[in-house]
Amino acid sequence: MPADSDLIALGREIRTRRKARNLSQEALAELAGLHRNYVGLLERGERNPSATTLFQLARALDIRLAELVGGL
Amino acid sequence: MPADSDLIALGREIRTRRKARNLSQEALAELAGLHRNYVGLLERGERNPSATTLFQLARALDIRLAELVGGL
Repeated sequence: MPADSDLIALGREIRTRRKARNLSQEALAELAGLHRNYVGLLERGERNPSATTLFQLARALDIRLAELVGGL
Repeated sequence: MPADSDLIALGREIRTRRKARNLSQEALAELAGLHRNYVGLLERGERNPSATTLFQLARALDIRLAELVGGL
């Protein structure tokens, strides 16, 4: 799987987890301490988040990092 | 858990998976297309790898990303 498809797949996982929590992209970004547009960029696979950002997202979603990337 | 302890915990997971494969840090770095010293820095929690780097490490270890961060 070429790199960009990794990030697209990761973005899809983030979106699935976010929707499962009925959070908007802006609400998740705020909870995770990220810029309000960043979650949308991540979900479209347009950004390559750091491990720390992934930990922040998992915490904001109240799940473990392993769950956030569970399907990958 | 403050951010740096996240990276330390992540580094420990990478080390555990690497050792389970009997790979040296240099061998894993080469398989993952990373600088030979980078794996050691990661394992000590001294670097904040990107998602793409985590995918490369998982592939080099022949495991899924979810397994690489399974304990997190």
